[in-house]
Amino acid sequence: MIPLRGVPAVQAGDDLAALVAAAAERAGGLEDGDIVVVAQKVVSKAEGRVVALADVEPSAFAQGAAGDRDARHLEVILRESARVVRMRSPLVIAETRHGFVCASAGVDASNAPAAGTLVLLPLDPDASAGRIRARLTERTGRRVGVIVSDSFGRPWRQGTTDVAIGVAGVRALLDLRGERDPTGYELRTTTIATADEIAGAAELVMGKTAGIPAALVRGLDVAGDGSARELVMPPDRDLFR
Amino acid sequence: MIPLRGVPAVQAGDDLAALVAAAAERAGGLEDGDIVVVAQKVVSKAEGRVVALADVEPSAFAQGAAGDRDARHLEVILRESARVVRMRSPLVIAETRHGFVCASAGVDASNAPAAGTLVLLPLDPDASAGRIRARLTERTGRRVGVIVSDSFGRPWRQGTTDVAIGVAGVRALLDLRGERDPTGYELRTTTIATADEIAGAAELVMGKTAGIPAALVRGLDVAGDGSARELVMPPDRDLFR
Repeated sequence: MIPLRGVPAVQAGDDLAALVAAAAERAGGLEDGDIVVVAQKVVSKAEGRVVALADVEPSAFAQGAAGDRDARHLEVILRESARVVRMRSPLVIAETRHGFVCASAGVDASNAPAAGTLVLLPLDPDASAGRIRARLTERTGRRVGVIVSDSFGRPWRQGTTDVAIGVAGVRALLDLRGERDPTGYELRTTTIATADEIAGAAELVMGKTAGIPAALVRGLDVAGDGSARELVMPPDRDLFR
Repeated sequence: MIPLRGVPAVQAGDDLAALVAAAAERAGGLEDGDIVVVAQKVVSKAEGRVVALADVEPSAFAQGAAGDRDARHLEVILRESARVVRMRSPLVIAETRHGFVCASAGVDASNAPAAGTLVLLPLDPDASAGRIRARLTERTGRRVGVIVSDSFGRPWRQGTTDVAIGVAGVRALLDLRGERDPTGYELRTTTIATADEIAGAAELVMGKTAGIPAALVRGLDVAGDGSARELVMPPDRDLFR
């Protein structure tokens, strides 16, 4: 796990892959099979997925439900939500249009470009990962995987862990069903969320306050054609809808 | 992340820390600050937390609810449960006496010592981690942290990730509340489940079918006095009870 330092503040329209490639170059260069983990925040900023509160007109519902908080902030969260899963002011747990269930539908004021702005999730984070991957290959000639990561809370457990919300060139899930353990027992239900574990591992060297928005994970044999869509539990298998 | 290979099959009463220390020695030796991640399965086996189905008398409830499955297996799950959270045969999501919410209350037939046996979670996994840590220090003179890991599913997301169910000498949570991001914004709600991310990272080099029950994670500055109890969401803060 190698932190990629020195990525400058990212603005809408920036060539994020070029900034990451330059940081990787300073860290010794990319190698075939590397996984480049990029924080959602900088991906969203590069894609211009930023809203200024001053431009938001809150609905009557948002005004009524906002309580002490800025109704415009709640309005943005509700616009990003396909479904509100839980609401206990100021907390909103929502399902996004991508199918992710997370706090505030992924809307976040931390590490935003300026005071009074909010950063939204990318419209299609798998596509974001794919574009970054293609551009990294173009610039470096290396065959790498890309994961776009974000910090999600979990029911029943304290604290967030980083998970994969966009995947390109990496196996998202490792399906061990039908494999046997060393004693010959056939594993019946084991599927491992490899891409989520990689995103969490990368977070350990990135850090929200240190301004390190990307990391390399090297030495894992996880190339594949996974997507973050695969990490979303299908509604008919979801015991918690 | 360094896999610890060559740990032999673990039996009740084995000195697991000595087996792990020997494997670490073959991998170049422990260093101060290393985190030793040990799979729950071998911890439980060393502690004799194994039940033979032949010794289990299922209750009438377990017989009625078991459907196609072995009622004795369901009986063991129910005995390990403080609360059943969801049940859709053959799946049981339960809260254990430790407060963990997971499939089958952590009861598992894979990597069990023999056919017809089930492995249970340790009675007190933080204490298990503490004992392994003390014994590792005794044998190697190194100050290390220990995490006992297990694979948990998550609502809304496919696949398991490894999380920390026992912690000793490692910070479990990183509390960033009150810290500021590089733009000066104060992080209000961010607490990171560091120990869970470390457990997930270690899983990437361990593997359920490869017989690698432990790994070292080196180079992180995460020494502390955390516990897995801290990772359990207190009921009054839990939106998903």
